[in-house]
Amino acid sequence: MTSFESDYNNGAHPDILHRLIESNSLSSSSYGNDQWSESARNKIRAATGCPNATIFFLTGGTQANATVIDGMIDSYEGVVAVETAHINVHESGAIEAFGHKVLTLPSHSGKMDAGELRSYLRAYHADPTWEHMVYPGMTYLTFPTELGTIYKASEIEEMYSICQSYNIPLFIDGARLGYGLMSKECDFTLPWLAQHCDAFYIGGTKVGALCGEAVVFPRGNAPRHFFSIVKRHGALLAKSRLAGIQFEALFTDDLYFRIAQQAISKAMELRALFAEAGIPIKESPTNQQFVILTNKQMEKLRTQILFETWAPVDNTQTLCRFVTSWATTDEDMAQLSIALKNLQK
Amino acid sequence: MTSFESDYNNGAHPDILHRLIESNSLSSSSYGNDQWSESARNKIRAATGCPNATIFFLTGGTQANATVIDGMIDSYEGVVAVETAHINVHESGAIEAFGHKVLTLPSHSGKMDAGELRSYLRAYHADPTWEHMVYPGMTYLTFPTELGTIYKASEIEEMYSICQSYNIPLFIDGARLGYGLMSKECDFTLPWLAQHCDAFYIGGTKVGALCGEAVVFPRGNAPRHFFSIVKRHGALLAKSRLAGIQFEALFTDDLYFRIAQQAISKAMELRALFAEAGIPIKESPTNQQFVILTNKQMEKLRTQILFETWAPVDNTQTLCRFVTSWATTDEDMAQLSIALKNLQK
Amino acid sequence: MTSFESDYNNGAHPDILHRLIESNSLSSSSYGNDQWSESARNKIRAATGCPNATIFFLTGGTQANATVIDGMIDSYEGVVAVETAHINVHESGAIEAFGHKVLTLPSHSGKMDAGELRSYLRAYHADPTWEHMVYPGMTYLTFPTELGTIYKASEIEEMYSICQSYNIPLFIDGARLGYGLMSKECDFTLPWLAQHCDAFYIGGTKVGALCGEAVVFPRGNAPRHFFSIVKRHGALLAKSRLAGIQFEALFTDDLYFRIAQQAISKAMELRALFAEAGIPIKESPTNQQFVILTNKQMEKLRTQILFETWAPVDNTQTLCRFVTSWATTDEDMAQLSIALKNLQK
Amino acid sequence: MTSFESDYNNGAHPDILHRLIESNSLSSSSYGNDQWSESARNKIRAATGCPNATIFFLTGGTQANATVIDGMIDSYEGVVAVETAHINVHESGAIEAFGHKVLTLPSHSGKMDAGELRSYLRAYHADPTWEHMVYPGMTYLTFPTELGTIYKASEIEEMYSICQSYNIPLFIDGARLGYGLMSKECDFTLPWLAQHCDAFYIGGTKVGALCGEAVVFPRGNAPRHFFSIVKRHGALLAKSRLAGIQFEALFTDDLYFRIAQQAISKAMELRALFAEAGIPIKESPTNQQFVILTNKQMEKLRTQILFETWAPVDNTQTLCRFVTSWATTDEDMAQLSIALKNLQK
Repeated sequence: MTSFESDYNNGAHPDILHRLIESNSLSSSSYGNDQWSESARNKIRAATGCPNATIFFLTGGTQANATVIDGMIDSYEGVVAVETAHINVHESGAIEAFGHKVLTLPSHSGKMDAGELRSYLRAYHADPTWEHMVYPGMTYLTFPTELGTIYKASEIEEMYSICQSYNIPLFIDGARLGYGLMSKECDFTLPWLAQHCDAFYIGGTKVGALCGEAVVFPRGNAPRHFFSIVKRHGALLAKSRLAGIQFEALFTDDLYFRIAQQAISKAMELRALFAEAGIPIKESPTNQQFVILTNKQMEKLRTQILFETWAPVDNTQTLCRFVTSWATTDEDMAQLSIALKNLQK
Repeated sequence: MTSFESDYNNGAHPDILHRLIESNSLSSSSYGNDQWSESARNKIRAATGCPNATIFFLTGGTQANATVIDGMIDSYEGVVAVETAHINVHESGAIEAFGHKVLTLPSHSGKMDAGELRSYLRAYHADPTWEHMVYPGMTYLTFPTELGTIYKASEIEEMYSICQSYNIPLFIDGARLGYGLMSKECDFTLPWLAQHCDAFYIGGTKVGALCGEAVVFPRGNAPRHFFSIVKRHGALLAKSRLAGIQFEALFTDDLYFRIAQQAISKAMELRALFAEAGIPIKESPTNQQFVILTNKQMEKLRTQILFETWAPVDNTQTLCRFVTSWATTDEDMAQLSIALKNLQK
Repeated sequence: MTSFESDYNNGAHPDILHRLIESNSLSSSSYGNDQWSESARNKIRAATGCPNATIFFLTGGTQANATVIDGMIDSYEGVVAVETAHINVHESGAIEAFGHKVLTLPSHSGKMDAGELRSYLRAYHADPTWEHMVYPGMTYLTFPTELGTIYKASEIEEMYSICQSYNIPLFIDGARLGYGLMSKECDFTLPWLAQHCDAFYIGGTKVGALCGEAVVFPRGNAPRHFFSIVKRHGALLAKSRLAGIQFEALFTDDLYFRIAQQAISKAMELRALFAEAGIPIKESPTNQQFVILTNKQMEKLRTQILFETWAPVDNTQTLCRFVTSWATTDEDMAQLSIALKNLQK
Repeated sequence: MTSFESDYNNGAHPDILHRLIESNSLSSSSYGNDQWSESARNKIRAATGCPNATIFFLTGGTQANATVIDGMIDSYEGVVAVETAHINVHESGAIEAFGHKVLTLPSHSGKMDAGELRSYLRAYHADPTWEHMVYPGMTYLTFPTELGTIYKASEIEEMYSICQSYNIPLFIDGARLGYGLMSKECDFTLPWLAQHCDAFYIGGTKVGALCGEAVVFPRGNAPRHFFSIVKRHGALLAKSRLAGIQFEALFTDDLYFRIAQQAISKAMELRALFAEAGIPIKESPTNQQFVILTNKQMEKLRTQILFETWAPVDNTQTLCRFVTSWATTDEDMAQLSIALKNLQK
């Protein structure tokens, strides 16, 4: 059945698969020292404009979040995030597993408000009795957010400046980074982003790879002994070539950005189809689209198209998620179009 | 250069690569629910003779150890292992990261002694003041061990019986399980093993896969909510197909065992070459071979062959490790033969 | 200066001090096995109507919360609490330190709503994809709450029944338990409470002791090896007599309840004084009283009386806390009365 | 029965009790800000010759160890200790509970060998593949050791110098510090010790107090936010006066040292009694004495004197521990003398 369930229910992008095939018979070092990982790191250094970046390849998003957060902050420190943040909701407690509290601020369509961040940090530091509360040791943003929305450069700039004034790192979860950067509404580039945070990761799993997230410390600012930290988190690949080869492919000839671009085009087509069908759709310039279906529509549509239910809106309506990827075809769009027309009958 | 460094410095076995290629264009569910994972689980159930086994695919050995141990024992409990155990030495503290102490017994060529295990558990339970010590909540064995040695069926049987009498699980780390089972000295089968422990994993990374370890709870005895536990450990693959496809291939037409068999043949050839060269070699019936080289020999050999130094024996000699795999060729053996002859000149 | 800062800024109640003095020259066993601890446990068994209760004496509230929660739930499980709960706000992350997420529900004057608890648990169990979220493994209530309010028997009954239907324990933080039980609005007794939860503690530190909280598992249902768990939390007193003697005194001749009663009488006098002065005071039948002062009033009052500021209400008003204890004297009340009169000048 | 079981099976030293009584009716601030804690900190600063020392009062030894170690090292780091170290054996995993591995070196009558420490650290830093092992981030010594032995100044000096060369802290567990310092064989003073480590604690529980350990960071070098760290460990006393008053007494008129001196005198008398009786006794210049009794002697002696069995020596003999304290009387010594004479009948 035509599926808009997720951007991780397909195989590898053909260019990545090709690279896996052609490299397969070569032998290599392991644990990050293989030739492809080295080449991929160099290509990412170039793409981010960070010649001194330290880069590690991990296998998944939750793993990357837990490892980076735990690696960058002291054991007693917490991480500030919005209530809807992936680390707060959908990681089965992977952050707390390493002893860190997720300190929540309100979510505004998935986004953190800079003013609220400033007030929170100011209040913490103003009152010595707040030492009974968890120290806010890092700020965590997702770009794009779990709801498909994105930050403006000015917003990130302001939050980064707040973090710097309190001497805490800003970490950006880029599980779907490509889709954010290639969004028409995005007013900054990857090199700009790398200059406005202390760590981020470039998501591969959801952007064409079989697995893999590239964690970037843009100014060579990886935590001391981060290799050991990665191993301690069970996140070190023996055959690191698996991640290295894939990222080497993703950062050759802009493949990473082309994959994201293609998915966004399809997402914009999808928005048009829902608009045509008169179905309310949330603001989102990226590859995740959230629409409000009546439960009746939802049940009917489900018989023809795969998608995820997100959350009930009320007793009769449900927020549903439709996601595009490099694997979304014109045929998929046509099927959706037909299915939406059928709804109106 | 010809390499005997490890069994993870090559790509995927061609049959596995082939399966990745042919499945690539199909879409699938995620997080373990894809069709290949389901098929692989069924094939493993058949191969282990455990129709009710619960099976999870993780990406690496340290991750599998940390997740299974943490999942099966209470937070205050420790795990009994020999001093040379992988979890005690080479996992950067991944077990302690989740709060568990590794309780050590002496290592006998990498193996635990059943009598010492019994004495330890008996002493703990005999004296109530031992509640100030960490409760031994599990026994951990590696098969084969970190030194390439293997247990007899009678030894495992005895240790499993001891564990059962204290009502604690026996967990077997099978990162190189295939090599143990296919060793000429092994006197049991995979189904027998599955009946003599409470959990084990079938290592894929070191037996032909790009990544992947199949954790098996042979009697459907996975810890409650093990899915959440896996996720909490950052060990859940979104594109679970990556592991599923590989294990589906490994357990088709006995590929897993054929890979192990081939590596062992080469290891036996390697033993013969070292014996011929008059170089002392430790007892090991599996694919890891440990030889004692004078430091002069070591330096010379190193210029022609890649291998790992393991530990100094004394000021003039070093224990070195040579590992074979499915990728070890006759040509590799010939190169080693020449290099060893050169040593004697 | 007259102080209403807290119920822990004084020494021991004289009867407790007396017991410490008279027992000082006797020798005893340690780690919980001393004669006074045994006697205190028996007296608490009688007072709670739980002849089979297992009882442990710890030194402080945060410690008791962290030890009980960590001891009763699995490592991957979280604990449900209201947003204002002590464990969520004021314990510097002691719960997360042991890997557990605090899962929050809205606070209604410090209280949890049974309907909201039911909805939350129902939603978790209804949707298998919620396994990506932290499993709610326990419900935590404070009695009285951090805002001085108390639950009705019917409310606790309903929440306990909900917990039982999901097979998770209900744990009640009784750091100020006596004040709740002796409140005029309380419609149940200590034995009743012990029958309507799975664990609770009887706070001593804030009810006349120098330190000490009595953790009660009413039906002998302490977690396996709880002694080791206590030790692992750094919560085991070598000279356990320190806690034992104090609780032995507190549960002789109803001292615990008399202390609480006296503080509540003073709290009610205090309410009357604020009412007279026309200052808004929040509903609270216990020994913590929350009043809304204009910032001008606050500054003036502060020169004569010690009290805690709790939270800003708006730019011109602040919520302030006044606490009574066994050590609050008629003279203290007279001073407060004068100070309040001075405010109006 | 006459007891030599431990130095924590009695009440408070009378001078401490007296101070608790006379201060009881005064009110005070809490959480470390009371007047007695401040005074005690000043007296300890004077006694240690460390005017800038940062000092925290905790309640017990395991708690102090876990809090200091966890506070001073990064989450992925381990702590080097001898195999018999309290943190490795008798703390129910309190160090691992916070994620830290205890890295063990051999025990020489309870002591670490400086040469072995140097070799271990050198080996770790020499080989980059050791990043798969836990980073040794701190050295932990006990003074006196668990077996009653003590270090020479030259030994501590050498180990501190090794630690400094690797830039890791040296932490000294002084649960029985007084007994070490007052030993006739001790060749240094408290101020000297404070200059030769990065943190230590002055044990109160085993030296006359009801509870309490004074953690000293001699050069004001407490970890950032150590207050929060203490709270997170459940180690913050609300009524901090309890510890403050006791340490204020202990460091008035050298009470701490007089208590230790008295116990050591009695320990030396005890050594003489065992020597007279022809019973082998281990070298120990402090208040813990270890003798080898035949099991027959042990059973007989046990009927008249309380003491601890430590470990079996062989099938017929047992190592037993006898401990003196300020509460050990001449009468106790006479009873022991009689009992030992009875043994020979």
